[in-house]
Amino acid sequence: MTKASVVLIGNEILSGRTEDANLPYLGKRLAELGVTLAEARTIPDLEEVIIAVVNTCRATYDYVFTTGGIGSTHDDITTRSIATAFGAEVVTHPDAVARLEAAYGTNKVNAAQLKMAEVPVGAVLLDNPISGAPGYRIENVYVMAGVPEIMQAMFEGFCHELDGGPPIHSRTVSAKLRESQLAQGMEELQDRYPLVSIGSYPFYRQGHYGVDIVLRATELEILDRVEAEISELVRKTDR
Amino acid sequence: MTKASVVLIGNEILSGRTEDANLPYLGKRLAELGVTLAEARTIPDLEEVIIAVVNTCRATYDYVFTTGGIGSTHDDITTRSIATAFGAEVVTHPDAVARLEAAYGTNKVNAAQLKMAEVPVGAVLLDNPISGAPGYRIENVYVMAGVPEIMQAMFEGFCHELDGGPPIHSRTVSAKLRESQLAQGMEELQDRYPLVSIGSYPFYRQGHYGVDIVLRATELEILDRVEAEISELVRKTDR
Repeated sequence: MTKASVVLIGNEILSGRTEDANLPYLGKRLAELGVTLAEARTIPDLEEVIIAVVNTCRATYDYVFTTGGIGSTHDDITTRSIATAFGAEVVTHPDAVARLEAAYGTNKVNAAQLKMAEVPVGAVLLDNPISGAPGYRIENVYVMAGVPEIMQAMFEGFCHELDGGPPIHSRTVSAKLRESQLAQGMEELQDRYPLVSIGSYPFYRQGHYGVDIVLRATELEILDRVEAEISELVRKTDR
Repeated sequence: MTKASVVLIGNEILSGRTEDANLPYLGKRLAELGVTLAEARTIPDLEEVIIAVVNTCRATYDYVFTTGGIGSTHDDITTRSIATAFGAEVVTHPDAVARLEAAYGTNKVNAAQLKMAEVPVGAVLLDNPISGAPGYRIENVYVMAGVPEIMQAMFEGFCHELDGGPPIHSRTVSAKLRESQLAQGMEELQDRYPLVSIGSYPFYRQGHYGVDIVLRATELEILDRVEAEISELVRKTDR
């Protein structure tokens, strides 16, 4: 099983100012690519925290995906921190400068923008078809922008290279019941079908209770069977 | 400085199925209450992971807030895991049973629902005005539901007890500029005003670049001054 972690870097997420959109995107795409997202960390723009978390995650998981902190301003400290985590120098990558010049115009790249051409020694650039300034990969760590449109474009540019397992499929059965009414039946099904992960997600909308039962597995055939059994359980309970 | 961490428990967030709404809420409210949210972890419904993360976080921070996994179904393993993390037994709390009976009707609480009255020994119940089933606090760890409406109601019920510092105020100045055009000026301001945290958040919407500059500080007077200086910087740059 290929395992990954996502590291969301940015004070704005922890302060509640920005609602993160990168974790939902990466979670969905990684599942499709057969990569299990084992955990996500949301951390502040603090060098010692970035270094510690990146070093823990890269030693623990097959892949680490970071978002945020690779822009041109004083609070963008991701590259400096990642370089220190790897014990590598920061260098200005000539190919990254060329990409910035292609995006902004030759001789029109200012000093602040040049910061976006800096990478740790040993990094391989990741394409940014939207705004030019590249992300990069160093060993098993993919360093991406925080802006969702750019992060997504970067991810789609390299994700075919990821070495995942079979894609994880999911099915959702929704019921206008309290989940506790289905609890026993679901537990029995989970015991009978250990290869399917059965999750129960209650919701409460406009004064009404309901539950989404989510089935996840790599085998479509067994997923069909459990979906039919869950639907039958809901029908019987709802009578 | 009072520091906290948030632990979001649930496979559905890591799989991208559910977009978490609890972290933005808690981040915003904790800042208002003068509590610094130092990190957030999103972890799967796996007992050994929950135990390890809760034990790390409760030793590191003043407060830990968990969401998710305290319902009535087989995949709700938060209470069992938290109890193990504290080396405590799980018991059925009589007052929690009374709350469930008040919500569902006397003698109408089924076996699955009774699971929601289980807490680690030593836990203090947290009110759930929406659906009855309580959360709980054990030492510095607050264990809350995952459903956002219920989590928010629980939080608002106890948050006045949190021992925070002065509230952290924020101001946002938006500009239709690339952040790199403001980078140098912002860095100079950051150096001059170390008590204000100046964050730069570029965005890209409908083909246009822009940047939100977010100022955060506990002192309103200094915040006003830096806001005026940033606005002037934007005006000068935009000419």
